Amino acid sequence: MASERHRIAIIGLGQIGASIGMDIRGSFKGVDVIGHDKDPETAGLARRRGAVDEVAYTLPGAVEDAAIVIVAVPVTAVREVLTVITPNLSDGAIVTDTASTKVTVLEWAEEILPQSVDFIGGHPMAGVETPGVEGAQTGLFQSATWALIPLARAKPASIDTIVNLVRTMGGEPYFADPVEHDSLVAAISHLPIALSINLMRTVSASPSWREMARMAAGSFRDVSRLASGAVDMHNAIFATNRDFVLHWIDSYTAQLQELRALIEQGGDTLREGLQEAYDARDEWLRGRVGETDQHRAYDEIPTASESALSVFGGDRLARLASRFRRGPRN
Amino acid sequence: MASERHRIAIIGLGQIGASIGMDIRGSFKGVDVIGHDKDPETAGLARRRGAVDEVAYTLPGAVEDAAIVIVAVPVTAVREVLTVITPNLSDGAIVTDTASTKVTVLEWAEEILPQSVDFIGGHPMAGVETPGVEGAQTGLFQSATWALIPLARAKPASIDTIVNLVRTMGGEPYFADPVEHDSLVAAISHLPIALSINLMRTVSASPSWREMARMAAGSFRDVSRLASGAVDMHNAIFATNRDFVLHWIDSYTAQLQELRALIEQGGDTLREGLQEAYDARDEWLRGRVGETDQHRAYDEIPTASESALSVFGGDRLARLASRFRRGPRN
Repeated sequence: MASERHRIAIIGLGQIGASIGMDIRGSFKGVDVIGHDKDPETAGLARRRGAVDEVAYTLPGAVEDAAIVIVAVPVTAVREVLTVITPNLSDGAIVTDTASTKVTVLEWAEEILPQSVDFIGGHPMAGVETPGVEGAQTGLFQSATWALIPLARAKPASIDTIVNLVRTMGGEPYFADPVEHDSLVAAISHLPIALSINLMRTVSASPSWREMARMAAGSFRDVSRLASGAVDMHNAIFATNRDFVLHWIDSYTAQLQELRALIEQGGDTLREGLQEAYDARDEWLRGRVGETDQHRAYDEIPTASESALSVFGGDRLARLASRFRRGPRN
Repeated sequence: MASERHRIAIIGLGQIGASIGMDIRGSFKGVDVIGHDKDPETAGLARRRGAVDEVAYTLPGAVEDAAIVIVAVPVTAVREVLTVITPNLSDGAIVTDTASTKVTVLEWAEEILPQSVDFIGGHPMAGVETPGVEGAQTGLFQSATWALIPLARAKPASIDTIVNLVRTMGGEPYFADPVEHDSLVAAISHLPIALSINLMRTVSASPSWREMARMAAGSFRDVSRLASGAVDMHNAIFATNRDFVLHWIDSYTAQLQELRALIEQGGDTLREGLQEAYDARDEWLRGRVGETDQHRAYDEIPTASESALSVFGGDRLARLASRFRRGPRN
């Protein structure tokens, strides 16, 4: 009855960190989720919302004896967090994160973390408009792609552990190297942020903005939505992924000049261009793009239903890891 | 008991036309809503969904004896509709529309409609992603700005009728002249459409689109959403509002170069730029932009609760009009 319990630490209890906590607490017995946030009020709210079992009021205290440490802070804070927690990490602990860019984060992990700790970078492609712990919810990661970028030296067993943790939350692991990851998210996440911000800048700079504002409705709301994202986060994204973002802004600008020419010209060529964009998005919505790709091989890893749901039944870190490991049954 | 009934005709039973029908049928007794759509299947579905009392299978038949005719077709179809219905319009009928651009529509109305008919152009700033009659719903226009652009010769009583019809649906009438309207919507509606389409064009042209597609999530979904709008409608919008759209694409491009420079430079100037965009949207979301403007004077017009809800209780077109008219009680 008094069997040993396992600890998972979540550093940063914003929307992502708290949502992870809610999902983990709902899926595993015998596991304590320890949460820490630099803002004690946020930490308290996360606990009241059921995201953590216990709040640790110091960062080093949060990771003591934790089998898994999930760093869910903005990318620019990751370095400091890794530095502060390192002396207190258990041997064999697995560290992951949720930051938006990965090249810099992997460099920091390589540089700071001891050899006895494995780092698997993570980036769940999910989120809702309401920022912070208020926006946290169970099931946030259901069917969401969750990019995983392991440090080269990470053991397969540690990777499997994180893969199954992600699958338990309904996420779909997607392996990429850090440069590839940052290049891809620059196009499909950071470029849209820049475009939204730039739409707000363009219209609000107009002398007619007051009149426009009354007319602006759903179309404007959607395309400008990302301008309401956390300024700190956007700043961190542009700082750590600058070159790829600039590249995609340039591609976008060149393409916009082509679209401008099509609109000026009108007729069938414009219609074809509009139809192509419509079809491309339709294909994307149907999940028909990227069905087969070079990352598919990772699907050999056992599914959550096979192993992860029972993984915390054991009583040792070693056993925890072995349960996730690809065993002879494969 | 067998008192005379009034007819309102809706031409085009897509999302907007059918939603208008649902709201009108829910608000007025003694009124028959006659619907017509060039696609009989759409018309049938609109009737089954409760958007119309009766389907007219010919366009001229739909407007016979109608006190109000609402033309809810894509802008490029408006000219043909006005031409076909003109011989069958009753003297004193009021015609309005819902098309996305107004300069061209007002020119057509001036040219085609007889002097005995008043035209008040309309443009409800509302809509949901599901296109067509399937996306129609009651309450779609609740709190939505509804631009009204009367033909110069339209009688005040006719304008009042449309104002109150709009208010009955929960819409907020907003008067503009056609050039102003087209310029404003170019910025806050048509530019976002071009930006969404261009985002799809940019990423789907990339050799990495397959990998991107798997990573693309909510941010991408929102900013690219308008690329899934009806190709016909977008084509019509760009055709009838070309010059303003090109103007705003150019403004946007210039602003994007500035944002690019801020991102390249980083630091406090970037942060300030991001904060400005955040604040501008925040102000917009709070409804703090454009609170007082030159159109406010139109608020003298009686509200729906004062007059429109009971307006169809009378038994003559003349009485219908007089009920809407600003009377001595003001």
